[in-house]
Amino acid sequence: MDRSTINDALERGRAERLHYGPVHYIRFLDERPGLPRGTAVLGETMMIPGYPSIGRIQVLATGLGRHYAGGFWAEEKIDGFNVRILRHGDGVYAFSRGGYICPFSTDRAPELMDTRIFDEHPELIVCAEIAGPDNPYLEGSPPQIREDVQLFVFDLMQKGREGFLPQERKLDLIDRYGLPATRCFGRFRPGDVDRLRSLIMELDAEGAEGLVFKGAPDERRTKYVTGRSNITDIALCSEQLLDLPPEYFSNRLLRLAIFARENGQRDDPELERALGRAFLGGLHQAMDSSMAQGRVSHAFRCRFRTEHNALRFMDHLKRTGGSRVRMAEGSPRREGNHWILEFERILERMTGTLSNTLAGGFQYD
Amino acid sequence: MDRSTINDALERGRAERLHYGPVHYIRFLDERPGLPRGTAVLGETMMIPGYPSIGRIQVLATGLGRHYAGGFWAEEKIDGFNVRILRHGDGVYAFSRGGYICPFSTDRAPELMDTRIFDEHPELIVCAEIAGPDNPYLEGSPPQIREDVQLFVFDLMQKGREGFLPQERKLDLIDRYGLPATRCFGRFRPGDVDRLRSLIMELDAEGAEGLVFKGAPDERRTKYVTGRSNITDIALCSEQLLDLPPEYFSNRLLRLAIFARENGQRDDPELERALGRAFLGGLHQAMDSSMAQGRVSHAFRCRFRTEHNALRFMDHLKRTGGSRVRMAEGSPRREGNHWILEFERILERMTGTLSNTLAGGFQYD
Repeated sequence: MDRSTINDALERGRAERLHYGPVHYIRFLDERPGLPRGTAVLGETMMIPGYPSIGRIQVLATGLGRHYAGGFWAEEKIDGFNVRILRHGDGVYAFSRGGYICPFSTDRAPELMDTRIFDEHPELIVCAEIAGPDNPYLEGSPPQIREDVQLFVFDLMQKGREGFLPQERKLDLIDRYGLPATRCFGRFRPGDVDRLRSLIMELDAEGAEGLVFKGAPDERRTKYVTGRSNITDIALCSEQLLDLPPEYFSNRLLRLAIFARENGQRDDPELERALGRAFLGGLHQAMDSSMAQGRVSHAFRCRFRTEHNALRFMDHLKRTGGSRVRMAEGSPRREGNHWILEFERILERMTGTLSNTLAGGFQYD
Repeated sequence: MDRSTINDALERGRAERLHYGPVHYIRFLDERPGLPRGTAVLGETMMIPGYPSIGRIQVLATGLGRHYAGGFWAEEKIDGFNVRILRHGDGVYAFSRGGYICPFSTDRAPELMDTRIFDEHPELIVCAEIAGPDNPYLEGSPPQIREDVQLFVFDLMQKGREGFLPQERKLDLIDRYGLPATRCFGRFRPGDVDRLRSLIMELDAEGAEGLVFKGAPDERRTKYVTGRSNITDIALCSEQLLDLPPEYFSNRLLRLAIFARENGQRDDPELERALGRAFLGGLHQAMDSSMAQGRVSHAFRCRFRTEHNALRFMDHLKRTGGSRVRMAEGSPRREGNHWILEFERILERMTGTLSNTLAGGFQYD
């Protein structure tokens, strides 16, 4: 990226200088022509493109034909958080979706993938999802991951360039370097609605999140999630009912109903019950927590290779979370080869409302 | 009310002059010391006090003792809309909660109650709920009302004065003039939690909305609703998921969970299913409507004694609803002794979102 573009953005307050230890970088605060939000510049001018947002379709029968002229790939969508991993100088770094170098992902990347791919291909950016129960950001995780986190590679990009490597080249590199990757279910065409319905119902039963469709380079990528994933999200987050943006719940309710309609689950009593239970279960947990501890919170736990990165992440939490984050006593603590960080995110509105209401307080609403 | 207070409010834009046919009145736009929102002035200076908001408690075991020192009355809370009915000159008028003379309620009042009470007591204001399936404002209505609307008197006030008539005096006047009234379940004390729990579970099973507690004149009135009423509200309004303020749903979810906890319904599979069905049923209806008519709307129907008032109400709808209100062809039409008005309220966000989504459109969220 040319220096004058960078300097201009810095001067207009549309970019900021940051550093991660000795590594200096610039983060763009918003999207730029051809470059998604999360774009960063490493060193002097090396542009690291942001990972583009993926539009969501909710109806296969109408959506596929509308967005794809010919064939497209269907890959698994993983319920985790998006990182871009690359080598810079002697180190491997992981950028978050927002364009920050993430201490957790950077610390763990070498354990989660073989980084020798960067020896021969220092220009590559590995785009992946980190998912699992022991992650510091998300309440949910894929059911098959029982502990810690895993990495799922789904795209390769190149430093300084827009766009993705072609699917075949990506699959070839993933294969050659033994990278852990999302499942690729092959090629489909817009008319393959029935095949995709069977596939999505299998994923629904497994507890997988859904699919990402990737057509020709000039076509929009889209995502399509299982009905069950909406219930899972609601179950995990209903304890945060008043703290999350309300669209969190309304979007998922609508998606679930649309999915049920397309996939023969209208009036399914088990689905109805699971949805009701998703809301009520989390709210009962929140009340239990309010009665027992006087607060409602969600507990997180994650592990680091180095104490140094654990402390850096703690700093980040304290800076961004303020009084909403409560570190567990004695964090980080050594456990085997790792440093364990445990903390809670306090749900302030749930804490306040439940403590007043359960004590017999009144509200005007 | 003295003229200078009224003039001052008018000058500062805190009150507005309105008229209903030949009747001129002034409506205060916000609450005033000692006078709730909805306060109005009839003629030159006759103050019509607003009906005060009632705080909600959600836990009997802690709430009753916190708000009542001694005994209190428990009356049924009706799922309708609040009106204040009075005689002024030769006419009987009904004010809405917000302080407007309501053409619908004014038209129907003489059919819904015996207005001879005003012959001997022209100073009285009858505070009541109007409820039933054929009402122009609310989606819901008490299950025992099969058609049209009914009136339920629950308080008496006096023109020009703050506060309510004492309970005994009210019951006496209701009795003497044969007014239709809300059920009064008698006197309770804060320790009567078990008795009230039995009562609320009976009401829950009947489909009633809940209770209003009325203590000493200087004590706060409170309301307490059944768990089931929350599910009913969600079922009736989930077709409006994106059009209602999101708190509509989150407040009811929380109330339901708290009610279930206090009343032994935690983990009740029937309750869970009913809640899930409440959300999904309305959303399926909204989709049916989107597919069949290209719009999502809620249909209303109500009847008037006079064509004149029906037209006045239509005017009001057109003025306040704009393109969101769609009158049925040929409204108002004569049916027996009444004029029938039918109209739809269009749910604009549901209409737009579903039409795009069902046609395969994508969203970024």
